[in-house]
Amino acid sequence: MSTHGADPQLPVARVDTVVSIGEVETLKRIFPRLPAASSALLGPGDDAAVVAAPDGRFVVTTDMMIHGPDFRLAWSTAHDLGWKAAVSNLADVAAMGATPSALVVAIAAPLDTPVALLEGISDGLRDACAALSPGTGVVGGDLSVSNTLTLAVTAFGDLDGRPPVTRAGARPGDVVAVAGDLGRAGAGIWLLFDQGVHTEREPDTILGQALRVAHPVLVEAQLAPTSPLQAGRSAAQAGATAMLDVSDGLVLDAGRIATASGCSLELFHEAIEAEADALREVDAVVGAQARDFVLCGGEDHALLATFPAGQEVPPEFRVIGEVRGRAAGHPLVTIGGEAYVRPGGWDPFADWNGGVG
Amino acid sequence: MSTHGADPQLPVARVDTVVSIGEVETLKRIFPRLPAASSALLGPGDDAAVVAAPDGRFVVTTDMMIHGPDFRLAWSTAHDLGWKAAVSNLADVAAMGATPSALVVAIAAPLDTPVALLEGISDGLRDACAALSPGTGVVGGDLSVSNTLTLAVTAFGDLDGRPPVTRAGARPGDVVAVAGDLGRAGAGIWLLFDQGVHTEREPDTILGQALRVAHPVLVEAQLAPTSPLQAGRSAAQAGATAMLDVSDGLVLDAGRIATASGCSLELFHEAIEAEADALREVDAVVGAQARDFVLCGGEDHALLATFPAGQEVPPEFRVIGEVRGRAAGHPLVTIGGEAYVRPGGWDPFADWNGGVG
Repeated sequence: MSTHGADPQLPVARVDTVVSIGEVETLKRIFPRLPAASSALLGPGDDAAVVAAPDGRFVVTTDMMIHGPDFRLAWSTAHDLGWKAAVSNLADVAAMGATPSALVVAIAAPLDTPVALLEGISDGLRDACAALSPGTGVVGGDLSVSNTLTLAVTAFGDLDGRPPVTRAGARPGDVVAVAGDLGRAGAGIWLLFDQGVHTEREPDTILGQALRVAHPVLVEAQLAPTSPLQAGRSAAQAGATAMLDVSDGLVLDAGRIATASGCSLELFHEAIEAEADALREVDAVVGAQARDFVLCGGEDHALLATFPAGQEVPPEFRVIGEVRGRAAGHPLVTIGGEAYVRPGGWDPFADWNGGVG
Repeated sequence: MSTHGADPQLPVARVDTVVSIGEVETLKRIFPRLPAASSALLGPGDDAAVVAAPDGRFVVTTDMMIHGPDFRLAWSTAHDLGWKAAVSNLADVAAMGATPSALVVAIAAPLDTPVALLEGISDGLRDACAALSPGTGVVGGDLSVSNTLTLAVTAFGDLDGRPPVTRAGARPGDVVAVAGDLGRAGAGIWLLFDQGVHTEREPDTILGQALRVAHPVLVEAQLAPTSPLQAGRSAAQAGATAMLDVSDGLVLDAGRIATASGCSLELFHEAIEAEADALREVDAVVGAQARDFVLCGGEDHALLATFPAGQEVPPEFRVIGEVRGRAAGHPLVTIGGEAYVRPGGWDPFADWNGGVG
């Protein structure tokens, strides 16, 4: 098996692989590229690291990225993988109202993986931290071998003495607001699966690159997403009553706040239309599907929060709805008073066909 | 592909798989089996967990277990996998002198994985925590799909105000001591690869089970290891100057303390002979290889520590050597004054043949 697209019939340049240079040498090549964490009291290299938790608590979340269901090397660069692994985990930390502090990163790679791929992943981790969460860095990790390229990231954060903002605190009358972009990443994966595959429906490198040139905002939002990480802390400081990372689509994730809080969420018709208009403005290719991408696109890594009524929301947030009570039989989420029926979100066990790409 | 050994020719009982019941239902089946952590301020179910860090710091380590290089489903039960994933990570926490507090666990499983396998992994995590580190539990996780069954565990610990015990503090004159068993796990994996494979050298379930009955201590030490987790804190409280988890063989890991501390480690000839005798006493099958298993067996999850001379070591530890200075050209580790030449340890990139089993 091969992790890259080279035709085995053609002569290829001899490159260092993890098996040709070994574990110790590979780690030596990766380590200097990783970002340092200002919270690290003892960094990588011992049995474990020691990280500061100034208020006597730490926030922790973990998420895996698997070649096949979660990414395809035909479309994602190594840098994309490191970037997205960092951002998707740090967004979960931010969604608790915490400031990200550190990451540990475990990577399992096939024997023939070029060391340059691991170097690219490291650079992506570093650049995402530097761009979105300066001071956050990698304090430890693990390098293993696997037939399936796998990244497992665990991310940490600091609440600075505040209570965590859970999904359970929304109350009727609160306003619903969002920080970050909606629908772009969902439109990006639709484009890739619609036009970035060759005739056998397999992800294709050249077609993916062409799409990235033609539709940079949408494809980048999918492959190397951004997230308003600082807005998490802003929301907590402003008294947000509930918050989460929008990763499975706005309606499904809004429903999670409604369920946990025992209420319902009304999303204003005009606000959703405005979000759809903004998405069309970014790239007209979304056309009539803009509203669906906004409502159930997935992988937005926006922050959805509720705030007490009658106070200003932090500047990163746009008000898009309000919290209401829940009567028996009432839908968890309505848009302009109507339930939204199209199922959103990505269930890897139901939706992945086993392809890799 | 299949994750279990059933012959596809035979009719099989219909079992729930992760794809047949879906992600949400699978999580509902797993969650109640997982151990609760007394350090959890906010447990699983939100974007992230919140864990207590009473002295304002936390210890963190991460390690993956991959089907193929790290375990074979032909030999390991699901319960073994959860147990070993917990113990191997908690041993790294203990080796810093910390008390384990919590775990996060990410599992990626093939689409056809029986839910019962994930339940068994959960039970193994729970039973390992209960047996070796009561109060330690799972505070979060992730469930993904992958062609390769993968467990990624991140473990946390609490130093209770003490400095971490790194690899770098050993000084000439210190005594070298070990807690836990040496050589058993290495002998176990040798037995399995020597007699637990069928003619094509593939791991075989029936032969593995027979070996487990015939050589329970050695095979259990490999598949469901124990570790003297409490001894980590005891060592720190007794003033240990350096410590690590013996996972790649005694000589190689002793060399890591020597390198980090800028010294050399002499292991007493009589002490190593006594360890080899003890291993033969446990199971005579090791025969003349006993000394090699003790010195370079791997995956012992014993704790190797150095203590200032002239004081008693904690009762869990046996003195096996002393720290000496290092002259140019002097070996990092000697046994009875002689260098040990056989290379130890397991480099997954060099030693794995791509088989799964």
